[in-house]
Amino acid sequence: MKLFDGGRAPNPRRVRIFLAEKGLEVPLVRVDMGALEHKQAEVSARNPLQRLPVLELDDGTILTESVAICRYFEELHPEPALFGRGALGKALVEMWQRRIEFNLFQPVGFAFRHIHPAMKEWEIPQVPEWGEVNKPKVLDFLGLLDRELAAREFAAGDDFTIADITGLVAVDFMKPARITVPEELGNVWRWYRSLAARPSAKA
Amino acid sequence: MKLFDGGRAPNPRRVRIFLAEKGLEVPLVRVDMGALEHKQAEVSARNPLQRLPVLELDDGTILTESVAICRYFEELHPEPALFGRGALGKALVEMWQRRIEFNLFQPVGFAFRHIHPAMKEWEIPQVPEWGEVNKPKVLDFLGLLDRELAAREFAAGDDFTIADITGLVAVDFMKPARITVPEELGNVWRWYRSLAARPSAKA
Repeated sequence: MKLFDGGRAPNPRRVRIFLAEKGLEVPLVRVDMGALEHKQAEVSARNPLQRLPVLELDDGTILTESVAICRYFEELHPEPALFGRGALGKALVEMWQRRIEFNLFQPVGFAFRHIHPAMKEWEIPQVPEWGEVNKPKVLDFLGLLDRELAAREFAAGDDFTIADITGLVAVDFMKPARITVPEELGNVWRWYRSLAARPSAKA
Repeated sequence: MKLFDGGRAPNPRRVRIFLAEKGLEVPLVRVDMGALEHKQAEVSARNPLQRLPVLELDDGTILTESVAICRYFEELHPEPALFGRGALGKALVEMWQRRIEFNLFQPVGFAFRHIHPAMKEWEIPQVPEWGEVNKPKVLDFLGLLDRELAAREFAAGDDFTIADITGLVAVDFMKPARITVPEELGNVWRWYRSLAARPSAKA
């Protein structure tokens, strides 16, 4: 199999961190998203949505969508469990993964893509007002997350999961989106620093 | 357990259809979203994000996020499998569930919430330009889906799954969002009509 990877972009990074946490190595095909190579035939033929990452299995089967690719590896290599254990544990991971995705990861992405001048050729058309509207949404959710993290170590409970990966990548992506985690959110900072210190964060 | 339900809104409907397909009955607590009851204490105390549905277990544990609630029931009642079977099957369902969610369900919701006058008190602030930008995204994705559905019966393969539930609810929600499935997308129409004819569609 091979993984078409998009370098610094948030979604490719989510999958690389997931693989590092699993201790798995998958051959990477590097695609230069800065040069818009993901809009060219190599990627388009595999993913008509022209997004990365894309996993190609040995029989040619294509898997796209970061979380779907992660789930494939979770099923093949269940340990360490990054999608939770048991019915309730799996549901709680799904809940926090989605809460973080829709209320942090995605709004940060909207703020970046709809405001940053470098995204002009990526996000057509940019709607700067929409980008601005998303910034307070990010801060609201970080406040909620801070209250939750007062009572536990990780986003979905006592174990590191895919919800934390989405959270780490989202917080790191706040930098180019020009949003800052408020000083006073001590639990978010403690959580973020512990995630950023894991070896997988460098993947 | 009890399910705080939001009537005609798309997410509560996704969970009700899922339960109907599983043949499960869960006591419903009806919340009148038209009267903004989901912003009041009964829901806010259980879900600070003030969104529905919310599942409360007998021990008081709260689950939110439609797909997380569905996954809980899938784990407890695996048949019929609505999240796929085997590593690749589960990954393909996740892929199509997410493709439909991000490229159809969510853009339809943005078009509705940011343009429709009835949403003024719900979506603050409305960004009508953002709503308009999402309409062609919906049509583009329906074209992609039509090509995919030429080769198979359901969104993720030969079996009905949660990806189809998200698709059905999204297409029905196109009506208040004032977007129409183009006549010529015969495969989408065939797929949509077969989903709408299932008894679960009335849930």
